[in-house]
Amino acid sequence: MSTTIRVAIVGASGETGQSIVNALLSSSTPKFEITALTRPQSLHKPTNLALQARGVNIVPADLRGPAAPLIDLLQGIDVVISAIHFDALADEIPLADAAKAAGVQRFVQSALMIVIPPRGVVDFREKKEENLHHIQKLRLPYTYIDAGWWHQLTLPRLPSGRVDHLLPRPPAAHPSLPLGLDGNVPTALADLRDVGRYVARIIADPRTVNKRVHVYNEVYTLNRVYEVVERVSGERLGRRFVSEAQARAAVDDARTQLSLTPGDPTALLAHVAAQLFYSWAIRGDNTPEYARYLGYVSGKDLYPDFEYVSFEEYVTEAIRGEGKGVYQDR
Amino acid sequence: MSTTIRVAIVGASGETGQSIVNALLSSSTPKFEITALTRPQSLHKPTNLALQARGVNIVPADLRGPAAPLIDLLQGIDVVISAIHFDALADEIPLADAAKAAGVQRFVQSALMIVIPPRGVVDFREKKEENLHHIQKLRLPYTYIDAGWWHQLTLPRLPSGRVDHLLPRPPAAHPSLPLGLDGNVPTALADLRDVGRYVARIIADPRTVNKRVHVYNEVYTLNRVYEVVERVSGERLGRRFVSEAQARAAVDDARTQLSLTPGDPTALLAHVAAQLFYSWAIRGDNTPEYARYLGYVSGKDLYPDFEYVSFEEYVTEAIRGEGKGVYQDR
Repeated sequence: MSTTIRVAIVGASGETGQSIVNALLSSSTPKFEITALTRPQSLHKPTNLALQARGVNIVPADLRGPAAPLIDLLQGIDVVISAIHFDALADEIPLADAAKAAGVQRFVQSALMIVIPPRGVVDFREKKEENLHHIQKLRLPYTYIDAGWWHQLTLPRLPSGRVDHLLPRPPAAHPSLPLGLDGNVPTALADLRDVGRYVARIIADPRTVNKRVHVYNEVYTLNRVYEVVERVSGERLGRRFVSEAQARAAVDDARTQLSLTPGDPTALLAHVAAQLFYSWAIRGDNTPEYARYLGYVSGKDLYPDFEYVSFEEYVTEAIRGEGKGVYQDR
Repeated sequence: MSTTIRVAIVGASGETGQSIVNALLSSSTPKFEITALTRPQSLHKPTNLALQARGVNIVPADLRGPAAPLIDLLQGIDVVISAIHFDALADEIPLADAAKAAGVQRFVQSALMIVIPPRGVVDFREKKEENLHHIQKLRLPYTYIDAGWWHQLTLPRLPSGRVDHLLPRPPAAHPSLPLGLDGNVPTALADLRDVGRYVARIIADPRTVNKRVHVYNEVYTLNRVYEVVERVSGERLGRRFVSEAQARAAVDDARTQLSLTPGDPTALLAHVAAQLFYSWAIRGDNTPEYARYLGYVSGKDLYPDFEYVSFEEYVTEAIRGEGKGVYQDR
């Protein structure tokens, strides 16, 4: 690998993709040369033009098309990063095949989620594991990266409405605000801006080849989230506690709704959101301990010097009116 | 864990199960107290009576029955080992559930095979991975152990017929003798008697909790297998080389046959044997390097002092008329 690491990324315009591109562009040692693979019809979209203006090489690629042009595109690429949306995970199979054929030295699949059991809790997590198995069958060097639950999805609504502009839309599909059980379930958090910075460290690190890596900033309970937000904002927040039975029923209801309107994006998102809430807020899967149990290497051990945005810093920014929300355009 | 480790084992009368029980009974430090769970109708079978005479506690257990008696049986057990046959892997689910409920400190599922990609090459391997995922969803402490291809399945037939009594029956279901590709595909070997001894070390070792562990004796190619057997026996052996296309066709043919006679044990075994051969003798999956890539810890690193039976020692014994075959009673 030369001193400049050549990265090809798919999904650069998504929330995680943007965080990764920002971090790669900001890095001085090592330098990253970035190629963003985009659908041919999206070549001239504003987000792609903006990336191009910042020095990203934008190339059209059809992951569902013939293999040869995709293999050509990946010639000379050191690292492929897939930040594909969870509803397009099947596209990673031809991407991995092409990466193998092109001799890519590391494939980072679209894991990039909280820690979840590989099977039986969140449907899309199973697909991610299946994709890893495909990669492993190919013997393609890989890194499977999961990260903390974003600060940007952990901010409760304030009675004053001061942070409404930062909250994901539609709120129903992002029920991150209720408290699971008694509110004392621990969960690993990360600022979305840090996720890309972790990825930049990991893909330049030979210790992380063929490993699962878990990166996060701090471990919080939702009670502590509410306490910090109340203290920093000076506002008093209502709390809605959700029992295991209620969370389970929400998953079942969302699944029923999805079966009635298969493929409907809102129903799909609501189902995923209910499953994710059940995993992190009720089962308490999203912890460093569970990640270690599952075989992940911890980012805390790899990068003890990493300077992250704390949750309190994020809240302070948000209440000052700074910062940027996620999933604003739905 | 006390100085005596209390082990419950399922499948004690199988080839791997016997190796494990022998090793546990032979161990002085630590001591193992062994409970073998057996089907109620098998309680008085000669193999169980023989185990009982050697100090193994034989208890009837119905893995497909109610949970409560199974949980009771596992109270106070430190380690559960499943050496269940690959066609009964579904029984591991209630066993793992009961182990979790009983507070068992380590669950060793029936992996105990060569190194195979988790998906897409050997059907039963996928089921083993699914069982691991179930265990992980439960957060049950586990160790996933795979071992080298047995010496006992690697002995070619000699023209003199001197080792015929050691060869698995029926030979058609164990096509371990042809050479894959040019005969230079590496494969990790282990003597079946050592497999249990490795397991005894691993289950007393805190470093192996929540890990995949790969144990093997030596890495051989089949060309080297033939050379050693010719040298030790003084006999000249014919060699049959199998191409990738032939091995692939053998898998397809076996699958077709199985679909015509679903559930037929001979067809099932032939299909498994063809898939296994394709994995280790053609793809070359069964190597320490591939195990490391898949995230296994190596037994060579954990137990550098382990004294194993070399393949040449095994062959020398076999040709002297000593030793014991496997799968003799089919």
